[in-house]
Amino acid sequence: MTDNASPMLRPISQIAAALGIESRHVMPYGEHVAKIDIAALRPGAGNGRLVLVSSITPTPLGEGKTVTTIGLSQGLNHIGQRAIACIRQPSLGPVFGVKGGAAGGGAAQVLPMERLNLHLTGDIHAISAAHNLAAAALDARLFHEQRLGDKFSEHTGMARLDIDPGRVVWKRVVDHNDRALREIEIGVGGGSNGVTRHDGFEITAASELMAILALTNDLADMRQRIGRIILAYSLQGHAITAEDLEVAGAMTVLMRDAIHPNLMQTSENTPVLIHAGPFANIAHGNSSVLADRMALQMADYVVTEAGFGSDMGMEKFFSIKYRQAGIAPSCIVLVATLRSLKANSGKFNMKPGQSLPDEVRHANLPLLAEGCANLGWHIANARRYGLPVVVAINRFPEDSAEELSYVREFALSRGAFGVEVSDAFACGGKGTSRLAECVVAACRETGEVTLLYPDTLPLAEKIQQLVRQGYGAECAELSVQAQETLDDLERRGFGHLPLCMAKTPLSISADSALKNVPHGFVIPVSALEVCAGAGFIRVYAGNIVTMPGLSTQPAYRHIDIDSAGNIRGLS
Amino acid sequence: MTDNASPMLRPISQIAAALGIESRHVMPYGEHVAKIDIAALRPGAGNGRLVLVSSITPTPLGEGKTVTTIGLSQGLNHIGQRAIACIRQPSLGPVFGVKGGAAGGGAAQVLPMERLNLHLTGDIHAISAAHNLAAAALDARLFHEQRLGDKFSEHTGMARLDIDPGRVVWKRVVDHNDRALREIEIGVGGGSNGVTRHDGFEITAASELMAILALTNDLADMRQRIGRIILAYSLQGHAITAEDLEVAGAMTVLMRDAIHPNLMQTSENTPVLIHAGPFANIAHGNSSVLADRMALQMADYVVTEAGFGSDMGMEKFFSIKYRQAGIAPSCIVLVATLRSLKANSGKFNMKPGQSLPDEVRHANLPLLAEGCANLGWHIANARRYGLPVVVAINRFPEDSAEELSYVREFALSRGAFGVEVSDAFACGGKGTSRLAECVVAACRETGEVTLLYPDTLPLAEKIQQLVRQGYGAECAELSVQAQETLDDLERRGFGHLPLCMAKTPLSISADSALKNVPHGFVIPVSALEVCAGAGFIRVYAGNIVTMPGLSTQPAYRHIDIDSAGNIRGLS
Repeated sequence: MTDNASPMLRPISQIAAALGIESRHVMPYGEHVAKIDIAALRPGAGNGRLVLVSSITPTPLGEGKTVTTIGLSQGLNHIGQRAIACIRQPSLGPVFGVKGGAAGGGAAQVLPMERLNLHLTGDIHAISAAHNLAAAALDARLFHEQRLGDKFSEHTGMARLDIDPGRVVWKRVVDHNDRALREIEIGVGGGSNGVTRHDGFEITAASELMAILALTNDLADMRQRIGRIILAYSLQGHAITAEDLEVAGAMTVLMRDAIHPNLMQTSENTPVLIHAGPFANIAHGNSSVLADRMALQMADYVVTEAGFGSDMGMEKFFSIKYRQAGIAPSCIVLVATLRSLKANSGKFNMKPGQSLPDEVRHANLPLLAEGCANLGWHIANARRYGLPVVVAINRFPEDSAEELSYVREFALSRGAFGVEVSDAFACGGKGTSRLAECVVAACRETGEVTLLYPDTLPLAEKIQQLVRQGYGAECAELSVQAQETLDDLERRGFGHLPLCMAKTPLSISADSALKNVPHGFVIPVSALEVCAGAGFIRVYAGNIVTMPGLSTQPAYRHIDIDSAGNIRGLS
Repeated sequence: MTDNASPMLRPISQIAAALGIESRHVMPYGEHVAKIDIAALRPGAGNGRLVLVSSITPTPLGEGKTVTTIGLSQGLNHIGQRAIACIRQPSLGPVFGVKGGAAGGGAAQVLPMERLNLHLTGDIHAISAAHNLAAAALDARLFHEQRLGDKFSEHTGMARLDIDPGRVVWKRVVDHNDRALREIEIGVGGGSNGVTRHDGFEITAASELMAILALTNDLADMRQRIGRIILAYSLQGHAITAEDLEVAGAMTVLMRDAIHPNLMQTSENTPVLIHAGPFANIAHGNSSVLADRMALQMADYVVTEAGFGSDMGMEKFFSIKYRQAGIAPSCIVLVATLRSLKANSGKFNMKPGQSLPDEVRHANLPLLAEGCANLGWHIANARRYGLPVVVAINRFPEDSAEELSYVREFALSRGAFGVEVSDAFACGGKGTSRLAECVVAACRETGEVTLLYPDTLPLAEKIQQLVRQGYGAECAELSVQAQETLDDLERRGFGHLPLCMAKTPLSISADSALKNVPHGFVIPVSALEVCAGAGFIRVYAGNIVTMPGLSTQPAYRHIDIDSAGNIRGLS
């Protein structure tokens, strides 16, 4: 049980006690991780202010959003504020795939990072288990109803569900990048092997259960949401829910520990709550409402991260998480780096793991100026929601003063409340104290959240409003199938739900080849899917894979462990 | 985090301290569960005596082997001995399928049973994750090598593995009863979805990684064993290992916490180590060597359970676990109930969940006498290994004195060292104190383990010796494919390994319809498979499913949770 924990880490029980959490609400998982019982929550929102960290359009270089989130929480501590960071649990897919973990880095990381990046307290595994139980139950029911035919009810005492094998919408999940499972045939081989049908796996981060965990208020609410999940449609066209299949209770039982947020600390002992892990492209991209609520009751400032650029996780924060939970940020922080701004110029076709073009690595003001258009777009996009926007430039050693100064002037001219350099990686909280001061000042500005669309707007108009105001698109074009599903969802009474757009994060548009600030583009909508338990409608823009693949240079090749338990290659 | 924990449970830290475990080796997972670092192990075997609990041929009625194992450990405590029970972690498959959990019951159970029966500390999830990482890595490599063709090495700097898509032997796993995943087609849909091939899922209990966890000595040994796992064969016929795929390090990293045994307690505060969970039909059916070693260093008596009847888990204990680890039991306990003896007569075709025939429920000496032949066989089978055998009759309220007396005389006449009634369910340790005294006396007998076959015997002869001496079969008949694999394994140098027979537990033969003591039967061997990391050769006798299915009356339907977190329907 060796962790590469830095010696200055405090026992997690001390971190919890300092936050005022009663020891009966602290469930330790080893010395440096604990679950905090949601029974510790009091009614009401708490007095803390929420700071939402987003970014420019992400590039293969990485913008350092998690480093900045962790560093900013440390910086707020450094200037005398009580601060907590709220982040998502890393998925094993990226950890063993290409990107590495999500613990931050340098002097601004969550420790022990092995605990964060691997199983943590098993929440994602619990989601996979609950998700796949429903899938197994559904296919078993399909098999037994088909096998017993007219005698099914007589034999079992249960009414037939008449599951349409062509309309099972609940795929299976695994927390890996496993491309070979994207599309599969199951129930092959006849006999008792079940009914043959087309199926597929998604990565667990895409599970509706992950979204439910991130959006739920309490155990009873989670139980009800799980009951509402639509697994399939019947031959008669009725929705078949987890409640109908009598599996919702067992699914919730599997998730009963997962509902409690996980407490860890940063390299400077700043508390961090880690809870839920939806990606922001295929899901809603934000950590949990319960963790935010808990943190806001215990701290002055809560720094939380929304996945990918402001068109992705931030939009979904407002459209979905804020809409359901009513917790508004007081300020938006947009993270950028000089090199990712240059990369956003669109002049390079960069891929992860490849060496950087010289123009990106070295000072190049014209290139930077070009890429700054992307920053400008994200500032405007964030301001549209009615809140002050602070730009954080995550500094690299080679960054020139001239370039930093250019970005500062540019951002202020586009309406940023402030622009500060973050030295979180090199200096931790000391390196973000100016950013922290700026955030505190921004949070004093009063702002009222403006949503992109009202609940009452018909779905078709919600989609148009989202793509026009949220991305600057000309319009959305729905496939025939998407239009049919949309009409069907309206008829079934799901028209009031918000949207969760599944699109590429690598462009503001739905086409990853369109860099910087694309204009005149159309968002192609290929399919819609209701998540009745999570409370949103997934809108698929183009060919969105909900199961990543491993590349030719996967991270797992370099990960190993010695006989003393020391891990190498994990980052 | 509500557990239905009885109020007399002690904090797990106290249980650990009473065992003399230093607090730095105790990693708490909540108040009542802890992992014990294997760093707490000292060299050598310890002074404790190991008691191996097995049973007659299992019936759908359940024999109460876990209740007896837990109860006996409590009974040993009750008569003043320091005792620890070592059991396997329950699989979610049976918990949500038909059988329920594996915590024991009544006054002899592991508490809180929700913790035991659900995720515990995530070991099984870790195994699933490590297993499926290798599968994803293999299919990704197959895809990239096919996609890049001759340019693969140039592009990636790696040598081709030339994986034969028709000879991938590493299936995927999930810890559920999911019949629809038994046989599947993966990589469907073309494009970047991978290479289409036939595949399947097994339940995690069948994973070679589960066997490795149960058989390993330490972290370095586990790392090496994982490296030796054969995932596939190349087009040239070479074995492709996890080491070859460069994924063994990452797999071990995922299992680095799983290697530490889990400590809980019984309803009478007797310590219980729970570690690994291989089934005894499709795997080797015993909890871990590490847990046994740890317990033997901390207690006078260690009671451990081997899965199913003595032909299954007990045989595998000797042939595999004892052979690898060198830890011998001092005594065998065979569990039986009057009704399961009657059921073993073979006069009834009973199924789980159906009501019992009157003859089985009520006193019926002729029927009992008939079924006792099965007990006689298992006594002889256990004695063959050279150790004293104690028969434990797990008492039910309706049991008559006359029938109990009959079984006692019968068992003694067949060479049992002793026969005692166990009232573990009703009375806990008090109800097993006579059984405990008998076990203590039996452990004073000196015995030397006799193995069924020596390492050096050729595989073909090992199989014949196992089925003749281990089951009383006429012989084994190998399919053409099995014979070819056997020859191939001998050529590849695996002939020295012991066997792990995958067969039905419901008969001593390989045909579940042959009840009681079958004679003159043949064991059909359909396939062989080497587990080079676990260190045994799987022999499939007939049509053995390594992925169970859900019935029409699955347990999950009755499992639910209330808003306070109280679980119902779990047992």
